[in-house]
Amino acid sequence: MFNKRYAAPGSAPATLATLTTPHEAAQPAMRLIEYDGTSLVEKAVPTIADLPTFTDDGRIRWLDIEGLGDAEIFQALGEKYGLHPLALEDALHTGQRPKMEPYEKHLFIVAQMVYRDTELQMCGEQVSMFLGHNFLVTIQEEVGTDVFDPVRARIRAGRGSIRKLGADYLCYALLDAIIDHCFPILESLGDALEELEDEVLEHPQASCIATLHRHKRTLAQLRRFVWPERDVCNALLHDETGLVSPQTKVFLRDAYDHTVQIMDLIESYRDLVSGLTEMYLSAVGMRTNEVIRVLTIMSSIFIPLTFIVGIYGMNFDRGDGTRPLNMPELYQPWGYPLLLLVMLALSVGQIVFFRRKKWL
Amino acid sequence: MFNKRYAAPGSAPATLATLTTPHEAAQPAMRLIEYDGTSLVEKAVPTIADLPTFTDDGRIRWLDIEGLGDAEIFQALGEKYGLHPLALEDALHTGQRPKMEPYEKHLFIVAQMVYRDTELQMCGEQVSMFLGHNFLVTIQEEVGTDVFDPVRARIRAGRGSIRKLGADYLCYALLDAIIDHCFPILESLGDALEELEDEVLEHPQASCIATLHRHKRTLAQLRRFVWPERDVCNALLHDETGLVSPQTKVFLRDAYDHTVQIMDLIESYRDLVSGLTEMYLSAVGMRTNEVIRVLTIMSSIFIPLTFIVGIYGMNFDRGDGTRPLNMPELYQPWGYPLLLLVMLALSVGQIVFFRRKKWL
Amino acid sequence: MFNKRYAAPGSAPATLATLTTPHEAAQPAMRLIEYDGTSLVEKAVPTIADLPTFTDDGRIRWLDIEGLGDAEIFQALGEKYGLHPLALEDALHTGQRPKMEPYEKHLFIVAQMVYRDTELQMCGEQVSMFLGHNFLVTIQEEVGTDVFDPVRARIRAGRGSIRKLGADYLCYALLDAIIDHCFPILESLGDALEELEDEVLEHPQASCIATLHRHKRTLAQLRRFVWPERDVCNALLHDETGLVSPQTKVFLRDAYDHTVQIMDLIESYRDLVSGLTEMYLSAVGMRTNEVIRVLTIMSSIFIPLTFIVGIYGMNFDRGDGTRPLNMPELYQPWGYPLLLLVMLALSVGQIVFFRRKKWL
Amino acid sequence: MFNKRYAAPGSAPATLATLTTPHEAAQPAMRLIEYDGTSLVEKAVPTIADLPTFTDDGRIRWLDIEGLGDAEIFQALGEKYGLHPLALEDALHTGQRPKMEPYEKHLFIVAQMVYRDTELQMCGEQVSMFLGHNFLVTIQEEVGTDVFDPVRARIRAGRGSIRKLGADYLCYALLDAIIDHCFPILESLGDALEELEDEVLEHPQASCIATLHRHKRTLAQLRRFVWPERDVCNALLHDETGLVSPQTKVFLRDAYDHTVQIMDLIESYRDLVSGLTEMYLSAVGMRTNEVIRVLTIMSSIFIPLTFIVGIYGMNFDRGDGTRPLNMPELYQPWGYPLLLLVMLALSVGQIVFFRRKKWL
Amino acid sequence: MFNKRYAAPGSAPATLATLTTPHEAAQPAMRLIEYDGTSLVEKAVPTIADLPTFTDDGRIRWLDIEGLGDAEIFQALGEKYGLHPLALEDALHTGQRPKMEPYEKHLFIVAQMVYRDTELQMCGEQVSMFLGHNFLVTIQEEVGTDVFDPVRARIRAGRGSIRKLGADYLCYALLDAIIDHCFPILESLGDALEELEDEVLEHPQASCIATLHRHKRTLAQLRRFVWPERDVCNALLHDETGLVSPQTKVFLRDAYDHTVQIMDLIESYRDLVSGLTEMYLSAVGMRTNEVIRVLTIMSSIFIPLTFIVGIYGMNFDRGDGTRPLNMPELYQPWGYPLLLLVMLALSVGQIVFFRRKKWL
Repeated sequence: MFNKRYAAPGSAPATLATLTTPHEAAQPAMRLIEYDGTSLVEKAVPTIADLPTFTDDGRIRWLDIEGLGDAEIFQALGEKYGLHPLALEDALHTGQRPKMEPYEKHLFIVAQMVYRDTELQMCGEQVSMFLGHNFLVTIQEEVGTDVFDPVRARIRAGRGSIRKLGADYLCYALLDAIIDHCFPILESLGDALEELEDEVLEHPQASCIATLHRHKRTLAQLRRFVWPERDVCNALLHDETGLVSPQTKVFLRDAYDHTVQIMDLIESYRDLVSGLTEMYLSAVGMRTNEVIRVLTIMSSIFIPLTFIVGIYGMNFDRGDGTRPLNMPELYQPWGYPLLLLVMLALSVGQIVFFRRKKWL
Repeated sequence: MFNKRYAAPGSAPATLATLTTPHEAAQPAMRLIEYDGTSLVEKAVPTIADLPTFTDDGRIRWLDIEGLGDAEIFQALGEKYGLHPLALEDALHTGQRPKMEPYEKHLFIVAQMVYRDTELQMCGEQVSMFLGHNFLVTIQEEVGTDVFDPVRARIRAGRGSIRKLGADYLCYALLDAIIDHCFPILESLGDALEELEDEVLEHPQASCIATLHRHKRTLAQLRRFVWPERDVCNALLHDETGLVSPQTKVFLRDAYDHTVQIMDLIESYRDLVSGLTEMYLSAVGMRTNEVIRVLTIMSSIFIPLTFIVGIYGMNFDRGDGTRPLNMPELYQPWGYPLLLLVMLALSVGQIVFFRRKKWL
Repeated sequence: MFNKRYAAPGSAPATLATLTTPHEAAQPAMRLIEYDGTSLVEKAVPTIADLPTFTDDGRIRWLDIEGLGDAEIFQALGEKYGLHPLALEDALHTGQRPKMEPYEKHLFIVAQMVYRDTELQMCGEQVSMFLGHNFLVTIQEEVGTDVFDPVRARIRAGRGSIRKLGADYLCYALLDAIIDHCFPILESLGDALEELEDEVLEHPQASCIATLHRHKRTLAQLRRFVWPERDVCNALLHDETGLVSPQTKVFLRDAYDHTVQIMDLIESYRDLVSGLTEMYLSAVGMRTNEVIRVLTIMSSIFIPLTFIVGIYGMNFDRGDGTRPLNMPELYQPWGYPLLLLVMLALSVGQIVFFRRKKWL
Repeated sequence: MFNKRYAAPGSAPATLATLTTPHEAAQPAMRLIEYDGTSLVEKAVPTIADLPTFTDDGRIRWLDIEGLGDAEIFQALGEKYGLHPLALEDALHTGQRPKMEPYEKHLFIVAQMVYRDTELQMCGEQVSMFLGHNFLVTIQEEVGTDVFDPVRARIRAGRGSIRKLGADYLCYALLDAIIDHCFPILESLGDALEELEDEVLEHPQASCIATLHRHKRTLAQLRRFVWPERDVCNALLHDETGLVSPQTKVFLRDAYDHTVQIMDLIESYRDLVSGLTEMYLSAVGMRTNEVIRVLTIMSSIFIPLTFIVGIYGMNFDRGDGTRPLNMPELYQPWGYPLLLLVMLALSVGQIVFFRRKKWL
Repeated sequence: MFNKRYAAPGSAPATLATLTTPHEAAQPAMRLIEYDGTSLVEKAVPTIADLPTFTDDGRIRWLDIEGLGDAEIFQALGEKYGLHPLALEDALHTGQRPKMEPYEKHLFIVAQMVYRDTELQMCGEQVSMFLGHNFLVTIQEEVGTDVFDPVRARIRAGRGSIRKLGADYLCYALLDAIIDHCFPILESLGDALEELEDEVLEHPQASCIATLHRHKRTLAQLRRFVWPERDVCNALLHDETGLVSPQTKVFLRDAYDHTVQIMDLIESYRDLVSGLTEMYLSAVGMRTNEVIRVLTIMSSIFIPLTFIVGIYGMNFDRGDGTRPLNMPELYQPWGYPLLLLVMLALSVGQIVFFRRKKWL
């Protein structure tokens, strides 16, 4: 629900000296990929001191940090590469809304990565990116899980545009991987909704409404992530700092288009969920109506009959053993069969009445 | 529900080399219509190699491809005519939102064609168009079904503007055919809703809500298609590449106007559907009320009577055969008739009471 | 519901040669009023050939055509006065959304006239206007019914501005007459809603919801007509072709203001209708509650009593004629009165309980 | 509901000659206040002829007319001071939406004054203002009731800015008085809603929904008045005719701010009203549930017991006076106590069951 | 509910002479903090006369006034520092909507401070700020409670930017403290909603809806405060008076970002609250359905059985002691066991029927 990390209210805005470590966060692991069109170096970097400076030698450097558990590392990182403390603070205070903020020396991008874990549960994780002229620093919330493996494979394979274009293209490729990961999630959600639709139409159960509620929350969550990511794509498309090249912008338009399609799907699904909720409620109402109809029919038929047989169970003649004058039918041989007939007629009459009313 | 085809998340954006064939798609069939004001050639084209180059000789060439089942053909096509790989990818990844995207050498238009099949079911199919200076390439999802036959007939007939104006007019004519096909669908939907309205007002049934739900989904679907097609028309109207001539723009304004009218109708229908849903729910509530009223009246009348006859069925004098002092009415000749009268009075009283309450 | 006429999808957009006659439309009747500040000629025109050319002699000419039943007449008309075929097509294809479209030689305006027929039913009819420099051609859907008689009377009377100002003022006067005709309709609708409000508050009936639904549809219909008419006024206010003079624009601002007021009223009424629907539903719920309360009270009081008298109707002593040990109260003179007292106490206790719960 | 006065549709827009008197309107009473920084003259003006011309002598003249019952007076007024006939028509056709319209010689402002009468009922009244260079003409719908007395007192007292600044400041002061009169109304409405909130939470009654409906209509009414008054303030703030001085604009910003606050409160209240409606509905549903739960518990406990005692009331041995073989328990001394025990156990079992289900 | 203080409608807008004291407001207490990069003076100021003039000596002066109970003090303050009377009036008339207004000599900012008191109840308090070139005057509604202690601590500590940057940064720091105080409130609200979600899903109770209503009001309240505070940040970001330096603007962008995140959370929570309300309603409906199903099953099984045993309780043979011809089963040894079997079969049949209907 509330997954926003925040500094104590009233505390100073981030300076490099005041970055603090989030609780329970894993120790950061750094991995550097350095490449140009012809060569590729990929290595783990144990400490900040081992990091190269980002010189303008035509090589692209992607520094990927997983885990937020040591504020000093980020402090040192910020100092080394001139990353703005406010941006670094946002990278550590996870639960940010996706956004793009231009700083003097770099663009700062926050995105929310969504994927399914090994039990097919949807998980989220914040990815912060610092895009400079020839470098990209990415900071991930969790260690060991991300959606970037296909991108890494493309870099290693060295085919396609990824080795020829700059850090901005790499940034686009990661963003695109994050965005496109919504498609399989929405696909399975769509399948689940189709099934639920049949269930609500045919056998509405109390569990349906809880399932619908859960899907609704998932959709709201996705929407909260994708909607601002659309703005991030748009902001990158209209970037004027020169850090995003026109070639990359053609691809960013494609990524933007994907966010629009995802939003479109989310809206359809939300519509469907609220339609199903409505149908479920109407089905419950209809069912109550049906149950109560059975009750009414049973009661209307048998309560009067019970009253009638009660009449003939009264003791209105006892005491002297003679036949009372006023209940002569009790002592006629035709009395009992006639009564049975009358009661049958009454029941049939009621059944006909209920049939006319379309209750039966 | 989820009908969007998408590449594996994280994979490289389309290059000609990486176009892949969608599953289960039919083998593409190509048909070329070449015409100018005076002559017309129409032929099937078996392979890409048989395709002419699109020279600027005043003739309009419409290459219509049905079926997406062979990525290599599209790759070859893209290379031959300079179609952008990202656009070709969108043509293959069906389920796109309608859109217009300008590329360097052509406009790329995606539309969703809606028609009714032989069983009058509504079907959809993606049509992608590449509009160049004197050519139009259309790529359709399905083989053999489209809504373009009247346009082909107009080209063959050679009357009207279609043979005199350029590829942009042809593109408009196809778009207009797609848009106008919503009218008969909306017309029959309108008729269905009118009938349903009478049914809900007079004999609300459980099936109504499912029908309403289905219509709502149809409307949502149409809306998802037509709303962005309005933007496509608008984008073409304000095209600045020069590929759309001012003469064609007058007609595009008409097409734009049709999308506005369709949206207007869809909104009215959506309003009506939600109004009918509300009415249905209120009718179910009203019916439950009616059923429960019958139950209450029957119970209120007969339960007390049954209690009374129960009193006189008690054995409060038995054992010694003498008349008990405290139930003397049991042994009077007027006892039984009086009781019947009392019970009749009680019933009548209740009926009067219920009539006053307008329950009867 | 669906009252839009449309050409077969895919057919060529209108050319003068392809205008077709709508089904069941009446034969067009033409009437020409020619006037300037001092003189007035008013005559029926049997054929197109009898129509004068619209010369620039300072006289205003209003050609009013009622009935759409002969496409050839409109074709001839279009040729004679240079009316655009797309506009003429819209005039014949009734059910258009009100709009204003500038063409080269004239403005084309579509409006929807709303009035009440002799049985006070609301009817609609499309009016298309071609406003040129010194002429106005109006095309009405139906013969013999319109809301323009007061305007004709003003022309004939020759007082006021109407004879002094141009065709644009005449166009405004007709538009204003169409718009202002919504006021009496809204007035009677308002009265009907007030009555309905009392009914829903005091005696909600099943018919209320149907009436509310009907009013809602009327309001939706009016809204669909008036909302775009506001845009028409606005478009005329900001016309830059010079066909609308500044003097007329002052009056158009007034007409625009009226559309805003009408929309304001429609929105209030829609709010009221949905508020009444809500109240009706809550009243039905409340009523069900009341009915079920009566049932519960009756059952709760009498079912236990019936059980008690049932106990004393059991035969637990029969067979040997001796008083059973375990039901001694049956044979005491105080047995029966005591039982009656106990049952009375039980009933009173329940009534007190129900009163405390505010159910009684 | 419908409180808009309007001319017959199709009639000529207002000219001075065609102003007509509204029905049942009171005879206009005119009162002139003439002041500058040092002197003040205040007098009733019996006829138009007695009115001074509005010369540019540094004195401010406020002509306040109450009552609309004599069109000729307004006609004469319009001629004397050059008030535009369309504006005068709007002043007479009450029920206007608040608006500000610039005319050549004056600004025309319509506002809706809201106050509570002697029985604390909310009333509305239209106030039209003509703001010229050094004069202000106000036309009120009703005689004798307005909210301007504090402003008159301020003029008479001669303190503060009102005597030093121009007619525009006077206009602001009146507008401000109209706007600020919404605060006490909203205050008492807020109190009423607080009380209602407690009532709905604790003892929901059928009258609540009618009260909520009434409050909702009051809020809708206020909103219809205040929303466009915000636009009036804004239009005056951005007036470019020079009739509104920069000093006054600082104060108008304050008035604008008040309209925003009022709208804010109205929106909060509307939210609260719809929340309360929802709560009321849920309370009714909950109550029905509670009632039906009592019914079910009573019936479930006593109906089976009644059946059991019925069994032992059957006559399955009568006729020969011998004990039947199959109902031996009837003739045992332990029969009756055992049966009572069994029935007690049954009841207790059910009570336990219902407690588990949390129905008790 | 209604917590807006306002002057009597129609009274003169604020002049220094007319400021009035709000009822029950505490006596103002003034505290001055004067600092620059190197030195810091902090002292209570007993009277206005003891206040220094705000000279341009590079020192920042923060005058913090708590309590509104003496209008004369504010009047004197206004005169001393040239604070605009309209702004001072807004500071005294608490319940303002947050806003930023530029005046000639200072910016005027209203914010609503939200915090939790010692019993963890949410409280609000208005804070008004006058930001000048090198001074900041803050006026708080209540004495002794505010959220500024961390900021005061930072000033005293003298670390970070706060002692180096100007009054605008101090103003930002206070605003930021106010905004960030929403995070812990939203955090605990989120936890409460999570718990409530479980409760509604598992054991919906009547108290849930009241709790939901209370949370909804809290959210509406927060929204009313934070939404305009976002505009305040934005207005300060785009300030053109020069009172806000570019360095501070970078931080204000961060504060703005926080308001966006808070709004985002509030919207999610509102969505959740309305989803939970819907679920609660559906749970009540489902529960009624369940209750009524039990009733129907019990009644349907036992009412017919009671009728049957009633038949055999009738006295149709009494009087002469002979076995009647028509009820022979009464006198057979197998009569009673057979009847029991028949009744058992009937019950089992009904149970099977109800199981098929999934009612059991």
